[in-house]
Formats: sequence, C-alpha cells, structure tokens
Amino acid sequence: MGIELVGTIAELQAKASMLLQARAGQAHLVGRAGTDVLPGTLGLVPTMGALHHGHATLARAAVAENSVVVATVFVNPLQFGDPADLDRYPRTTEADLALLEEAGVDFMFAPSVAEMYPNGEPAVRITAGKLGELYEGASRPGHFDGALTVVSKLLHVGLPSVGLAAPDAAGRPAYRAYFGQKDAQQLALVRTMAADLNFPVDIVAVPTVRDEDGLASSSRNRFLSEEERDSALVLSRALRLLKRRADAHEPLDIASAEELVRSAPGVELDYLEVVDPQTLAVRAENCQDTPFTGEALALIAAKVGPVRLIDNMPLGS
Amino acid sequence: MGIELVGTIAELQAKASMLLQARAGQAHLVGRAGTDVLPGTLGLVPTMGALHHGHATLARAAVAENSVVVATVFVNPLQFGDPADLDRYPRTTEADLALLEEAGVDFMFAPSVAEMYPNGEPAVRITAGKLGELYEGASRPGHFDGALTVVSKLLHVGLPSVGLAAPDAAGRPAYRAYFGQKDAQQLALVRTMAADLNFPVDIVAVPTVRDEDGLASSSRNRFLSEEERDSALVLSRALRLLKRRADAHEPLDIASAEELVRSAPGVELDYLEVVDPQTLAVRAENCQDTPFTGEALALIAAKVGPVRLIDNMPLGS
Repeated sequence: MGIELVGTIAELQAKASMLLQARAGQAHLVGRAGTDVLPGTLGLVPTMGALHHGHATLARAAVAENSVVVATVFVNPLQFGDPADLDRYPRTTEADLALLEEAGVDFMFAPSVAEMYPNGEPAVRITAGKLGELYEGASRPGHFDGALTVVSKLLHVGLPSVGLAAPDAAGRPAYRAYFGQKDAQQLALVRTMAADLNFPVDIVAVPTVRDEDGLASSSRNRFLSEEERDSALVLSRALRLLKRRADAHEPLDIASAEELVRSAPGVELDYLEVVDPQTLAVRAENCQDTPFTGEALALIAAKVGPVRLIDNMPLGS
Repeated sequence: MGIELVGTIAELQAKASMLLQARAGQAHLVGRAGTDVLPGTLGLVPTMGALHHGHATLARAAVAENSVVVATVFVNPLQFGDPADLDRYPRTTEADLALLEEAGVDFMFAPSVAEMYPNGEPAVRITAGKLGELYEGASRPGHFDGALTVVSKLLHVGLPSVGLAAPDAAGRPAYRAYFGQKDAQQLALVRTMAADLNFPVDIVAVPTVRDEDGLASSSRNRFLSEEERDSALVLSRALRLLKRRADAHEPLDIASAEELVRSAPGVELDYLEVVDPQTLAVRAENCQDTPFTGEALALIAAKVGPVRLIDNMPLGS
C-alpha cells in the first residue's frame, strides 16, 4: 500500500484509526523498515514540508517503530512574524509526498489554513513562557507561541480515537511524535509542553542529519550560494571544536570558537551558547577557563548572506 | 461497586481504562442512573471540590450518559491571584467523596499539587487571550490562563488510553467533559480552547442549579450571612427581569436592571452585561431601547458583603 494524501482532519482520523485497527490483528507486524513493531502504535511526524533527507530520517525513525505513521505538512502562518517570510517559505507538495512514500509513511496530512484555523486566528493559544523569548525567540517574537499552538493542534489531530495500544510497562504511550534535534529549542519547548500539560504522547528526538560537508540539513540551505555555503560550514566546525574540547575535558573557551565563526566571510554570528540540555539555561560553569565536565548542549545561530542558520551539538558523556 | 478515591495520574489512567474495558462487554449497559449508556464512553467532571448540589447535578448528568465517570477535585493554585484566597478556599474531601458516590461517579481523582505540578509552576501554559481579560478576568488578572492550563492538563489526564469507543456518526467524541453553565465565561473559554486546539473531547454544558430562593448554587454562598443572602437574591431577580423582557420582545432596559441591583443593601454591582452566548462579546443592539430579538446571555457579577458572586441567564429563543 502506498502513501495516501489527506486534506481534512475528519478524513485523517477516520482513516488512521481504521488502518491501526486493520493492522492490529497480527501479534507482531514485520515493520515496513524490516523491523518488528508493536500493533496499536502510531507515529506522528509534524513538518512544514520542503522536505529533505533530514526529514526522511525522521520519517524512517517513525516507520521503524510504529504500526501506522502520519506525517503532517503544514506551513503554519501563526509562527511567522513576517508575512513575506511566510510567502517565501518553499512549498514542494509533490516532492514531499514522494519522499514520505519512499520512507514508508502511510498518510501525508496536508491541511489548508482554513482547515486548521476555521475561525481565523485562534483566540486561545499556547504560550511558550520565558524559554520562548531566548535564542531563536529573541529575534522572532511570538514564534514559539505560534509553533507550540500548532503542535498542540497537530498532536490532538493525530491522536487516534480507537485502535491505540495501552502504554508499555514503563508507561511510554503507544502514540509518539517525532522531532528533529536540529531545532533544539523547539524540541525542548515541545517536550516541556507535553510534560507541563500532560499530553498523552511520547516525544521522540531524532539526531540531526548532516550533509557530507558537515552542514546541518535544512530547508533553508537551498537559498545559499556556493560561497555562502562554504562560509556556513564554520558553524558545524565551531560546534565540533567545542565537542572535541568537551570530550577531552578541556575548558571550552567559547570566545575562541566565536572568533572562528566571525572569521568566516559573510557570517554574522547571532549567538553561540553552551546550555543545559533539558532547560536550555545558559551554563556558566566550566565553559571558558576550567575543565569541562557533565553534559551540555552547544547552540549556534548565524546569518550567512541572506539566510539565517541554526545548529547545535550535544557535549559531554 | 462504590466510588474509588485516586491520588495519582498513573493510577487513574490504569483504573479508568480497565473499568472502561470491563464494562465494554455489554452491548448496552443499564446506566447507573437507570438509563442506557453506550459502552466506551467516559465522562470527566472537573471541580475544585467544596461540592454542593449544583455539582451533584453535573455529576449525575455525566453518569446518565457515560459508561465510566471520573470527577476531579483539585484546588488549582495557578488560578488564584491572591494566596490568602487560595488558603481560604474550602476543602471538604470526605463530604465531596460522599456526594460523588451518591451521584454514581466511579472515581474521584484528588491529586496533590506536587502530582499536578511536579516541576513547580508550568513553563508552558495556555493563554486565554482577549476574552480572558473581560468580565471575571478584569478583576482577576491571569485567572483564566491558570484555569485553562489546569483544564488542559485534566482533559489529558482523564483521556483513557484504551477502551474508548469511536466518535458517533455525528463526530461527537466518546470522551466528554462536563462544565456548569454557572461559570459562563469559563465554559465559553473551555469550549474555545477545545475547538481552537482540537482537543479530542466533547464539552458538555449543564444548566445552572439554583437554591429554592433563586440564588445560583455556589461554594461561596456558605460565606454569606442571612442578611447578605437576602440581598444576594437581587442578582437572580435582575436576570429574571431581563429574561421576562426578552421573552416578551421588549427593550431590555439594562439600566433599570442595574438600578434594581444597586438598590439592595450591601450589594456592590461589578457588571451586568448582555452578551453573545458564544463569544461573550457585548451585544449593543436592542438591549436598551429597541425590542429584543435573537439570543443572548445576561452576565452579572457583584460583591455582596465580603463575597463576590456571579450569575447568568440565557435570553431569547
């Protein structure tokens, strides 16, 4: 069975529940990725489309461990401050459908704006709180409120009304949603939302996928010229420098990593911070002059030519 | 089987799902209220405890149409601006349990503050938007944000992971949550939240219960002296006056109803507004001098002695 393109919430809920039940008969399915998956498990992969091989990895991770997989493609107006940025965001529906089918996804849910926001902008929303104002939020006010609001909607829309298995012995729900580690702040906020508001879903992080030259895969990379792309490599280079120092329990010396980034032509560094991997609070201890210990996350954002890029890397054990 | 008192989320979810499945064998159960209810239906009745016969009506409505009913008793610190008001809020666990058992409720979920907020105050929350700043929100900043945040948690906590029936032919979910019409603004906001964020739940409104003298039942009525209670009757009297005029398609003449309220000793009127029943937007047309047509809701709030009271009444067809 190939992938099915679905445009309405009612259709998605009816069809996903039906497929989940149809596949529940077998005690252990041989997953489409060649693995055994438990019946009654559903994976949701929320995206904004313009899919690349990073998204394919995300989709394959969901396919590998769920009986039914739904990918959503929705460019959410609520998380764009600038209408021009919203218009400019690439839409590649046909290619997205092909990529998701190749990955083994069952449904691509691509609703219209009217389907998602039938009453116009929602009156009641999610607010991301203080973490939503830092890092990416600092330059994009309201962005994470809009992103979390649509994620909360998609988590509800994707939840099957029937056919879901009980949580496993560890209490992990049979409903899982997959997010890329690449958008570290979004991932941290989605995790926080799911925990703080008791969403009945397991949030699964999928490691960042990189192109061969080390650049983190992103829908925005297509806007880089050859020279800009070359300069952009300094982001992952700076992160790897910090990782080497962390692995060697050396002082991180963030200042020198910042220098490295600033030395690349056309690169305008926004921030380079070493933070707590859960809370994303800036980590003051042993980042500059004392030996690194423990676990942290290095976050970087920079403008390269006209394109704003972000990347991050886990540091330590 | 009597009611069971449950203190943790994990226990509630395990037990409610189990009971839902145990009762699913029968094609039609004879409901504990003597009616037929469909298997796989679960009713949630969120309360702050200090239950009175208004809550009993709410609970019985849920029992009458659901296979399993969970009532929650949680005094939510997040929706109290004033810590003294939070401390003063009555807690009557034993009496609450007896009232809910009498109504036929299966589980009383009474979590601790630590169970509901294990990480302290939630970082990610629901925001009620503009409607949350009007009426009750005007005198209690942040109140509805806190109320919606805990309602969103309780809606997720009460949602059974297995055993729920599919939505009916009209798309109505088999998971229902019951709210009193008495708190009209809370009800409108919960409805808006459920719609705007696609919560998989049907929000059911239960008409306001009144004492014999017409006073709307409220946990706060116990704080009224005999004289104050007598004065407080002017609230429902003013609403009935508006309703008579609406029924007769007369001009509502709100100003005279306000006069009536202000004439009662010890009553300090906060607001008396005639609003759209869905959006609660103030309705300007035909409220003062032209014949009333259509549907509306009259909202009133007043301080009577030390006690703030609210009431409301649907007007028109």
